[in-house]
Amino acid sequence: MRFGVLGTGSVGRAIGGKLVEVGHEVKMGSRSAGNENAVAWAAEAGDAASEGSFADAAAFGEVVVNATAGQRSLEALEAAGAENLAGKVLVDIGNAIDPNERPPALIIPGNDSLGEQIQRAFPEARVVKTLNTVNNSVMVDPRGLPGSHNVFVCGNDEEAKAEVAAMLESFGWAGEEIIDLGDISSARGTEQYVGLWVRLMGALGTAEFNIRITPND
Amino acid sequence: MRFGVLGTGSVGRAIGGKLVEVGHEVKMGSRSAGNENAVAWAAEAGDAASEGSFADAAAFGEVVVNATAGQRSLEALEAAGAENLAGKVLVDIGNAIDPNERPPALIIPGNDSLGEQIQRAFPEARVVKTLNTVNNSVMVDPRGLPGSHNVFVCGNDEEAKAEVAAMLESFGWAGEEIIDLGDISSARGTEQYVGLWVRLMGALGTAEFNIRITPND
Repeated sequence: MRFGVLGTGSVGRAIGGKLVEVGHEVKMGSRSAGNENAVAWAAEAGDAASEGSFADAAAFGEVVVNATAGQRSLEALEAAGAENLAGKVLVDIGNAIDPNERPPALIIPGNDSLGEQIQRAFPEARVVKTLNTVNNSVMVDPRGLPGSHNVFVCGNDEEAKAEVAAMLESFGWAGEEIIDLGDISSARGTEQYVGLWVRLMGALGTAEFNIRITPND
Repeated sequence: MRFGVLGTGSVGRAIGGKLVEVGHEVKMGSRSAGNENAVAWAAEAGDAASEGSFADAAAFGEVVVNATAGQRSLEALEAAGAENLAGKVLVDIGNAIDPNERPPALIIPGNDSLGEQIQRAFPEARVVKTLNTVNNSVMVDPRGLPGSHNVFVCGNDEEAKAEVAAMLESFGWAGEEIIDLGDISSARGTEQYVGLWVRLMGALGTAEFNIRITPND
Protein backbone atom coordinates (compact mmCIF):
# COMPACT_ATOMS: atom_id res chain seq x y z
CA MET A 1 0.00 0.00 0.00
CA ARG A 2 1.09 3.61 -0.49
CA PHE A 3 1.49 5.87 2.55
CA GLY A 4 2.09 9.60 2.73
CA VAL A 5 3.83 10.60 5.97
CA LEU A 6 3.68 14.31 6.82
CA GLY A 7 6.54 15.44 9.02
CA THR A 8 10.27 14.81 9.01
CA GLY A 9 10.90 14.72 12.76
CA SER A 10 11.63 11.65 14.86
CA VAL A 11 8.01 10.47 14.71
CA GLY A 12 7.73 10.80 10.93
CA ARG A 13 11.03 9.04 10.35
CA ALA A 14 10.21 6.22 12.77
CA ILE A 15 6.74 5.63 11.28
CA GLY A 16 7.97 6.02 7.70
CA GLY A 17 10.81 3.59 8.27
CA LYS A 18 8.55 1.01 9.86
CA LEU A 19 6.00 1.27 7.07
CA VAL A 20 8.74 0.60 4.50
CA GLU A 21 10.04 -2.28 6.63
CA VAL A 22 6.64 -3.99 6.66
CA GLY A 23 6.32 -3.71 2.90
CA HIS A 24 4.72 -0.38 1.97
CA GLU A 25 5.75 2.47 -0.30
CA VAL A 26 6.18 5.70 1.64
CA LYS A 27 6.54 9.32 0.56
CA MET A 28 7.61 11.65 3.35
CA GLY A 29 6.26 15.18 3.05
CA SER A 30 7.60 18.45 4.38
CA ARG A 31 6.98 22.17 3.87
CA SER A 32 9.03 22.07 0.70
CA ALA A 33 10.42 19.16 -1.29
CA GLY A 34 14.09 18.45 -0.72
CA ASN A 35 14.00 18.80 3.07
CA GLU A 36 17.33 17.62 4.41
CA ASN A 37 15.86 15.20 6.98
CA ALA A 38 13.49 13.73 4.41
CA VAL A 39 16.18 13.29 1.75
CA ALA A 40 18.49 11.56 4.24
CA TRP A 41 15.64 9.36 5.47
CA ALA A 42 14.62 8.34 1.95
CA ALA A 43 18.22 7.52 0.99
CA GLU A 44 18.54 5.26 4.03
CA ALA A 45 15.09 3.65 3.85
CA GLY A 46 15.59 2.31 0.33
CA ASP A 47 13.73 2.11 -2.96
CA ALA A 48 10.24 2.14 -1.47
CA ALA A 49 10.94 5.48 0.20
CA SER A 50 10.71 8.90 -1.40
CA GLU A 51 10.12 12.48 -0.36
CA GLY A 52 8.35 15.62 -1.52
CA SER A 53 6.12 18.45 -0.38
CA PHE A 54 3.19 17.94 2.02
CA ALA A 55 0.91 17.94 -1.04
CA ASP A 56 3.12 15.45 -2.91
CA ALA A 57 3.05 13.06 0.04
CA ALA A 58 -0.68 13.39 0.63
CA ALA A 59 -1.46 12.88 -3.05
CA PHE A 60 0.79 9.81 -3.13
CA GLY A 61 -0.68 8.12 -0.08
CA GLU A 62 -3.73 5.88 -0.06
CA VAL A 63 -3.38 6.46 3.68
CA VAL A 64 -1.94 9.72 5.08
CA VAL A 65 -0.15 9.99 8.44
CA ASN A 66 0.06 13.30 10.30
CA ALA A 67 3.37 13.15 12.14
CA THR A 68 3.90 16.91 12.33
CA ALA A 69 4.22 18.82 15.61
CA GLY A 70 0.67 19.31 16.87
CA GLN A 71 0.74 23.08 17.06
CA ARG A 72 1.56 23.20 13.32
CA SER A 73 -0.54 20.26 12.12
CA LEU A 74 -3.51 22.22 10.79
CA GLU A 75 -1.19 24.41 8.72
CA ALA A 76 0.65 21.36 7.38
CA LEU A 77 -2.62 19.66 6.45
CA GLU A 78 -3.82 22.83 4.71
CA ALA A 79 -0.64 22.70 2.66
CA ALA A 80 -1.26 19.00 1.97
CA GLY A 81 -4.63 19.99 0.52
CA ALA A 82 -8.15 18.90 1.42
CA GLU A 83 -8.50 17.31 -2.04
CA ASN A 84 -5.54 15.03 -1.30
CA LEU A 85 -7.10 13.90 2.00
CA ALA A 86 -10.73 13.45 0.97
CA GLY A 87 -12.00 9.90 1.48
CA LYS A 88 -8.66 8.73 2.85
CA VAL A 89 -7.75 7.36 6.26
CA LEU A 90 -5.83 10.17 8.01
CA VAL A 91 -3.80 8.79 10.91
CA ASP A 92 -3.22 11.63 13.39
CA ILE A 93 -0.29 11.22 15.79
CA GLY A 94 0.06 14.93 16.64
CA ASN A 95 0.09 16.37 20.15
CA ALA A 96 -0.75 20.06 20.48
CA ILE A 97 1.57 21.25 23.20
CA ASP A 98 3.47 24.41 23.91
CA PRO A 99 7.09 23.23 23.72
CA ASN A 100 8.28 26.46 25.36
CA GLU A 101 6.68 25.48 28.68
CA ARG A 102 8.83 23.24 30.89
CA PRO A 103 7.64 20.54 30.79
CA PRO A 104 5.56 21.06 27.62
CA ALA A 105 1.96 22.07 28.37
CA LEU A 106 -1.35 21.24 26.67
CA ILE A 107 -2.64 24.18 24.63
CA ILE A 108 -6.14 22.98 23.69
CA PRO A 109 -9.09 23.42 26.10
CA GLY A 110 -10.45 20.35 27.89
CA ASN A 111 -13.54 20.10 25.69
CA ASP A 112 -11.65 19.90 22.38
CA SER A 113 -8.66 18.15 20.83
CA LEU A 114 -6.35 18.33 17.85
CA GLY A 115 -7.97 15.19 16.45
CA GLU A 116 -11.36 16.90 16.47
CA GLN A 117 -9.94 20.13 15.04
CA ILE A 118 -8.47 18.15 12.15
CA GLN A 119 -11.70 16.23 11.57
CA ARG A 120 -13.68 19.51 11.57
CA ALA A 121 -11.23 21.20 9.18
CA PHE A 122 -11.16 18.20 6.82
CA PRO A 123 -14.63 16.68 7.06
CA GLU A 124 -14.04 14.34 4.12
CA ALA A 125 -10.94 12.78 5.68
CA ARG A 126 -11.44 9.71 7.87
CA VAL A 127 -9.40 10.80 10.89
CA VAL A 128 -8.11 8.18 13.34
CA LYS A 129 -6.13 9.36 16.35
CA THR A 130 -3.58 6.86 17.56
CA LEU A 131 0.00 6.33 18.82
CA ASN A 132 0.26 9.84 20.33
CA THR A 133 0.49 8.34 23.84
CA VAL A 134 3.91 6.72 23.37
CA ASN A 135 7.42 7.63 22.34
CA ASN A 136 8.31 7.00 18.68
CA SER A 137 10.49 4.02 19.62
CA VAL A 138 7.54 2.38 21.36
CA MET A 139 5.15 3.23 18.49
CA VAL A 140 7.07 1.03 16.05
CA ASP A 141 8.57 -1.51 18.47
CA PRO A 142 5.96 -2.18 21.16
CA ARG A 143 7.58 -5.53 21.95
CA GLY A 144 10.67 -3.67 23.08
CA LEU A 145 8.85 -3.12 26.39
CA PRO A 146 8.17 -6.06 28.71
CA GLY A 147 4.70 -7.56 28.93
CA SER A 148 1.41 -6.28 27.64
CA HIS A 149 0.59 -2.57 27.31
CA ASN A 150 -1.99 -0.55 25.45
CA VAL A 151 -2.52 1.79 22.52
CA PHE A 152 -5.71 3.60 21.59
CA VAL A 153 -7.71 4.34 18.44
CA CYS A 154 -10.26 7.18 18.28
CA GLY A 155 -12.37 8.07 15.26
CA ASN A 156 -15.80 8.37 13.73
CA ASP A 157 -15.29 5.78 10.97
CA GLU A 158 -15.30 2.15 12.12
CA GLU A 159 -13.72 0.84 8.93
CA ALA A 160 -10.94 3.41 9.17
CA LYS A 161 -10.24 2.36 12.77
CA ALA A 162 -10.07 -1.28 11.65
CA GLU A 163 -7.54 -0.36 8.95
CA VAL A 164 -5.44 1.53 11.48
CA ALA A 165 -5.63 -1.38 13.93
CA ALA A 166 -4.28 -3.62 11.17
CA MET A 167 -1.41 -1.16 10.65
CA LEU A 168 -0.71 -1.22 14.41
CA GLU A 169 -0.69 -5.02 14.39
CA SER A 170 1.84 -4.95 11.54
CA PHE A 171 4.01 -2.81 13.84
CA GLY A 172 3.87 -5.50 16.56
CA TRP A 173 0.90 -4.41 18.67
CA ALA A 174 -1.33 -7.31 19.69
CA GLY A 175 -5.00 -7.00 18.76
CA GLU A 176 -6.08 -7.14 22.40
CA GLU A 177 -3.71 -4.29 23.26
CA ILE A 178 -5.56 -1.91 20.92
CA ILE A 179 -8.39 -0.14 22.77
CA ASP A 180 -11.10 1.58 20.74
CA LEU A 181 -11.98 4.64 22.84
CA GLY A 182 -14.88 5.73 20.65
CA ASP A 183 -15.48 8.60 18.27
CA ILE A 184 -12.97 11.33 17.46
CA SER A 185 -13.94 13.32 20.57
CA SER A 186 -12.17 10.62 22.59
CA ALA A 187 -8.92 11.98 21.14
CA ARG A 188 -9.21 14.44 24.05
CA GLY A 189 -8.45 11.59 26.40
CA THR A 190 -5.29 10.47 24.64
CA GLU A 191 -4.06 14.03 24.11
CA GLN A 192 -4.69 15.02 27.73
CA TYR A 193 -2.91 11.89 28.94
CA VAL A 194 0.25 13.39 27.45
CA GLY A 195 0.22 15.77 30.44
CA LEU A 196 0.87 12.72 32.63
CA TRP A 197 3.27 11.19 30.11
CA VAL A 198 5.69 14.13 30.30
CA ARG A 199 5.70 13.90 34.12
CA LEU A 200 6.24 10.15 34.04
CA MET A 201 9.12 10.65 31.64
CA GLY A 202 10.65 13.03 34.18
CA ALA A 203 10.05 10.71 37.15
CA LEU A 204 11.20 7.54 35.38
CA GLY A 205 14.10 9.20 33.56
CA THR A 206 13.20 7.60 30.24
CA ALA A 207 10.69 7.91 27.40
CA GLU A 208 10.70 4.15 26.94
CA PHE A 209 7.55 3.25 28.88
CA ASN A 210 3.85 2.85 28.41
CA ILE A 211 0.71 2.14 30.40
CA ARG A 212 -1.27 -1.03 30.73
CA ILE A 213 -4.94 -0.83 31.61
CA THR A 214 -5.79 -3.31 34.34
CA PRO A 215 -8.03 -5.16 34.05
CA ASN A 216 -8.78 -5.01 30.33
CA ASP A 217 -11.02 -7.88 29.37
CA MET B 1 -4.12 9.97 64.23
CA ARG B 2 -6.88 12.52 63.66
CA PHE B 3 -8.07 13.22 60.10
CA GLY B 4 -10.40 15.90 58.83
CA VAL B 5 -12.12 14.84 55.60
CA LEU B 6 -13.73 17.66 53.62
CA GLY B 7 -16.58 16.49 51.42
CA THR B 8 -19.50 14.15 51.94
CA GLY B 9 -19.67 12.59 48.47
CA SER B 10 -18.63 9.08 47.51
CA VAL B 11 -14.91 9.94 47.70
CA GLY B 12 -15.15 11.54 51.17
CA ARG B 13 -17.21 8.66 52.53
CA ALA B 14 -14.90 6.01 51.08
CA ILE B 15 -11.74 7.70 52.38
CA GLY B 16 -13.30 8.54 55.74
CA GLY B 17 -14.53 4.99 56.21
CA LYS B 18 -11.16 3.50 55.30
CA LEU B 19 -9.32 5.85 57.67
CA VAL B 20 -11.59 4.76 60.53
CA GLU B 21 -11.12 1.12 59.53
CA VAL B 22 -7.33 1.39 59.74
CA GLY B 23 -7.51 2.95 63.20
CA HIS B 24 -7.84 6.72 62.88
CA GLU B 25 -10.33 9.24 64.22
CA VAL B 26 -12.12 11.05 61.43
CA LYS B 27 -14.30 14.15 61.34
CA MET B 28 -16.14 14.66 58.07
CA GLY B 29 -16.73 18.28 57.11
CA SER B 30 -19.37 19.86 54.95
CA ARG B 31 -20.71 23.35 54.19
CA SER B 32 -22.72 23.25 57.40
CA ALA B 33 -22.65 20.82 60.31
CA GLY B 34 -25.45 18.26 60.30
CA ASN B 35 -25.20 17.42 56.58
CA GLU B 36 -27.40 14.39 55.97
CA ASN B 37 -24.71 12.34 54.18
CA ALA B 38 -22.16 13.12 56.89
CA VAL B 39 -24.51 12.27 59.76
CA ALA B 40 -25.45 8.94 58.13
CA TRP B 41 -21.78 8.17 57.42
CA ALA B 42 -20.72 8.95 61.01
CA ALA B 43 -23.51 6.81 62.44
CA GLU B 44 -22.41 3.86 60.32
CA ALA B 45 -18.65 4.31 60.70
CA GLY B 46 -18.71 4.07 64.49
CA ASP B 47 -17.32 5.87 67.51
CA ALA B 48 -14.17 7.13 65.82
CA ALA B 49 -16.27 8.99 63.23
CA SER B 50 -17.88 12.37 63.68
CA GLU B 51 -19.05 15.26 61.50
CA GLY B 52 -19.16 19.03 61.46
CA SER B 53 -18.51 22.06 59.32
CA PHE B 54 -15.52 22.35 56.97
CA ALA B 55 -13.80 24.44 59.68
CA ASP B 56 -14.67 21.90 62.42
CA ALA B 57 -13.17 19.07 60.37
CA ALA B 58 -10.04 21.00 59.38
CA ALA B 59 -9.44 22.12 62.98
CA PHE B 60 -9.90 18.54 64.19
CA GLY B 61 -7.52 16.93 61.71
CA GLU B 62 -3.78 16.60 62.15
CA VAL B 63 -4.04 15.74 58.45
CA VAL B 64 -6.75 17.23 56.23
CA VAL B 65 -8.15 15.53 53.12
CA ASN B 66 -9.79 17.53 50.34
CA ALA B 67 -12.44 15.22 48.92
CA THR B 68 -14.72 17.95 47.60
CA ALA B 69 -15.65 18.33 43.94
CA GLY B 70 -12.70 20.07 42.30
CA GLN B 71 -14.59 23.05 40.92
CA ARG B 72 -15.69 23.92 44.49
CA SER B 73 -12.53 22.93 46.38
CA LEU B 74 -11.03 26.40 46.79
CA GLU B 75 -14.30 27.68 48.24
CA ALA B 76 -14.52 24.70 50.62
CA LEU B 77 -10.93 25.23 51.76
CA GLU B 78 -11.60 28.95 52.32
CA ALA B 79 -14.47 27.90 54.56
CA ALA B 80 -12.17 25.41 56.32
CA GLY B 81 -9.86 28.33 57.11
CA ALA B 82 -6.20 28.90 56.32
CA GLU B 83 -5.42 28.87 60.05
CA ASN B 84 -6.80 25.33 60.30
CA LEU B 85 -4.61 24.14 57.40
CA ALA B 86 -1.32 25.88 58.23
CA GLY B 87 1.55 23.46 58.75
CA LYS B 88 -0.64 20.42 58.09
CA VAL B 89 -0.46 17.81 55.37
CA LEU B 90 -3.35 18.59 52.99
CA VAL B 91 -4.18 15.58 50.85
CA ASP B 92 -5.86 16.81 47.67
CA ILE B 93 -7.99 14.31 45.77
CA GLY B 94 -10.04 16.88 43.82
CA ASN B 95 -10.46 16.95 40.06
CA ALA B 96 -11.52 20.26 38.53
CA ILE B 97 -13.87 19.24 35.75
CA ASP B 98 -17.02 20.67 34.25
CA PRO B 99 -19.60 18.00 35.09
CA ASN B 100 -22.06 19.53 32.64
CA GLU B 101 -19.92 18.48 29.68
CA ARG B 102 -20.50 14.93 28.47
CA PRO B 103 -18.15 13.32 29.33
CA PRO B 104 -16.87 15.76 31.97
CA ALA B 105 -14.17 18.11 30.65
CA LEU B 106 -11.04 19.58 32.23
CA ILE B 107 -11.54 23.24 33.15
CA ILE B 108 -8.00 24.27 34.12
CA PRO B 109 -5.44 25.32 31.45
CA GLY B 110 -2.63 22.93 30.62
CA ASN B 111 -0.01 24.93 32.51
CA ASP B 112 -1.84 24.88 35.86
CA SER B 113 -3.69 22.46 38.14
CA LEU B 114 -6.05 22.42 41.09
CA GLY B 115 -3.23 21.09 43.26
CA GLU B 116 -1.11 24.15 42.44
CA GLN B 117 -4.04 26.52 42.89
CA ILE B 118 -4.61 25.10 46.37
CA GLN B 119 -0.92 25.30 47.25
CA ARG B 120 -0.81 28.93 46.05
CA ALA B 121 -3.97 29.86 47.98
CA PHE B 122 -2.76 28.13 51.17
CA PRO B 123 1.02 28.51 51.13
CA GLU B 124 1.38 27.25 54.70
CA ALA B 125 -0.40 23.96 53.97
CA ARG B 126 1.73 21.04 52.81
CA VAL B 127 -0.30 19.97 49.78
CA VAL B 128 0.07 16.45 48.39
CA LYS B 129 -1.96 15.48 45.33
CA THR B 130 -2.87 11.82 45.19
CA LEU B 131 -5.59 9.24 44.46
CA ASN B 132 -7.38 11.50 41.95
CA THR B 133 -6.57 9.06 39.13
CA VAL B 134 -8.77 6.20 40.36
CA ASN B 135 -12.35 5.54 41.34
CA ASN B 136 -13.11 5.73 45.08
CA SER B 137 -13.46 1.94 45.31
CA VAL B 138 -9.94 1.51 43.93
CA MET B 139 -8.56 4.28 46.19
CA VAL B 140 -9.34 2.32 49.33
CA ASP B 141 -9.19 -1.24 47.96
CA PRO B 142 -6.37 -1.35 45.42
CA ARG B 143 -6.05 -5.11 45.84
CA GLY B 144 -9.56 -5.47 44.46
CA LEU B 145 -7.96 -5.16 41.01
CA PRO B 146 -5.73 -7.94 39.66
CA GLY B 147 -1.97 -7.53 39.64
CA SER B 148 0.14 -4.47 40.18
CA HIS B 149 -1.00 -0.95 39.27
CA ASN B 150 0.08 2.56 40.18
CA VAL B 151 -0.85 5.62 42.17
CA PHE B 152 0.94 8.97 42.22
CA VAL B 153 2.04 11.53 44.79
CA CYS B 154 2.85 15.13 43.85
CA GLY B 155 3.98 17.85 46.25
CA ASN B 156 6.68 20.24 47.32
CA ASP B 157 7.26 18.75 50.79
CA GLU B 158 9.16 15.44 50.84
CA GLU B 159 8.14 14.60 54.39
CA ALA B 160 4.49 15.27 53.59
CA LYS B 161 4.72 12.94 50.58
CA ALA B 162 6.25 10.24 52.78
CA GLU B 163 3.37 10.59 55.26
CA VAL B 164 0.85 10.30 52.45
CA ALA B 165 2.66 7.27 51.03
CA ALA B 166 2.35 5.63 54.46
CA MET B 167 -1.38 6.39 54.43
CA LEU B 168 -1.64 4.82 50.95
CA GLU B 169 0.21 1.74 52.15
CA SER B 170 -2.25 1.44 55.04
CA PHE B 171 -5.00 1.40 52.37
CA GLY B 172 -3.34 -1.57 50.63
CA TRP B 173 -1.11 0.11 48.05
CA ALA B 174 2.34 -1.48 47.82
CA GLY B 175 5.28 0.87 48.27
CA GLU B 176 6.62 0.14 44.78
CA GLU B 177 3.25 1.02 43.28
CA ILE B 178 3.46 4.61 44.59
CA ILE B 179 5.20 6.86 42.06
CA ASP B 180 6.53 10.22 43.21
CA LEU B 181 5.97 12.49 40.19
CA GLY B 182 7.78 15.48 41.67
CA ASP B 183 6.66 18.85 42.97
CA ILE B 184 3.08 20.08 43.10
CA SER B 185 3.22 21.21 39.45
CA SER B 186 3.19 17.52 38.54
CA ALA B 187 -0.42 17.48 39.76
CA ARG B 188 -1.12 18.72 36.21
CA GLY B 189 -0.19 15.30 34.94
CA THR B 190 -2.53 13.38 37.21
CA GLU B 191 -5.39 15.84 36.70
CA GLN B 192 -5.01 15.83 32.92
CA TYR B 193 -4.92 12.03 32.90
CA VAL B 194 -8.53 12.18 34.11
CA GLY B 195 -9.41 13.19 30.53
CA LEU B 196 -8.30 9.71 29.47
CA TRP B 197 -9.84 8.08 32.54
CA VAL B 198 -13.37 9.21 31.63
CA ARG B 199 -12.94 7.84 28.11
CA LEU B 200 -11.58 4.54 29.40
CA MET B 201 -14.54 4.27 31.76
CA GLY B 202 -16.81 4.69 28.74
CA ALA B 203 -14.91 2.17 26.60
CA LEU B 204 -14.49 -0.44 29.35
CA GLY B 205 -17.98 0.05 30.80
CA THR B 206 -16.68 0.23 34.37
CA ALA B 207 -14.89 2.59 36.75
CA GLU B 208 -13.08 -0.33 38.36
CA PHE B 209 -9.76 -0.11 36.54
CA ASN B 210 -6.39 1.52 36.79
CA ILE B 211 -3.14 1.87 34.87
CA ARG B 212 0.16 0.16 35.39
CA ILE B 213 3.31 1.84 34.19
CA THR B 214 5.51 -0.61 32.31
CA PRO B 215 8.33 -0.93 32.97
CA ASN B 216 8.60 0.74 36.37
CA ASP B 217 11.85 -0.19 38.00
